Amino acid sequence: MKRKKPNIDRIFHALGDATRRAMVVRLSQGPMSVSRLAEPFEMTLAAVVQHLQVLEECGLVQTEKVGRVRSCRIEPTGLDAMEEWICDRRSVWERRLDRLGDLFGGSEKDG
Amino acid sequence: MKRKKPNIDRIFHALGDATRRAMVVRLSQGPMSVSRLAEPFEMTLAAVVQHLQVLEECGLVQTEKVGRVRSCRIEPTGLDAMEEWICDRRSVWERRLDRLGDLFGGSEKDG
Repeated sequence: MKRKKPNIDRIFHALGDATRRAMVVRLSQGPMSVSRLAEPFEMTLAAVVQHLQVLEECGLVQTEKVGRVRSCRIEPTGLDAMEEWICDRRSVWERRLDRLGDLFGGSEKDG
Repeated sequence: MKRKKPNIDRIFHALGDATRRAMVVRLSQGPMSVSRLAEPFEMTLAAVVQHLQVLEECGLVQTEKVGRVRSCRIEPTGLDAMEEWICDRRSVWERRLDRLGDLFGGSEKDG
């Protein structure tokens, strides 16, 4: 079983593609085999596997071969890494708004 | 002032590009003019404006022309939309894990 550390640059690049986003949505329903994952997508299995590799390389998905079947599932730490990136942007922004609020008398702190 | 409703497909596509992610990181420090935003990027102002348009179209950034200067700032609802998408994926996944936990006797709820 390969397990990739989440890479935020690659994650955003991976999710910039509509097919890969749809795969993540499908996998968030639960783990499934590559062929079942491929069902709704009008493309060759080879193309699905290529997209899956991109998702695995960035740490959003984990795949594991059990016997002859390759099973795939969401890797939650990939979602965590994205959420952290967003929170970091937001917290810088909100700290700034807080400072502006203080400057313009919006602060009602005691002491 | 144009204000675009966040579009999650376009947001992920927009952030799939390293330059545009760097612009969002820079703008999360606070609003600034286009020329100040452009400073660290080794590209023409026209190229910066093009990236900025992508960020504005997807609802991650807002720009406003005041006199002769175009000012840009983060549009927090764009970050909200992304966070919601991630939370939706995670909640489906976690509900599934909860159900598995219940099946295997992990539930310790009263009543």
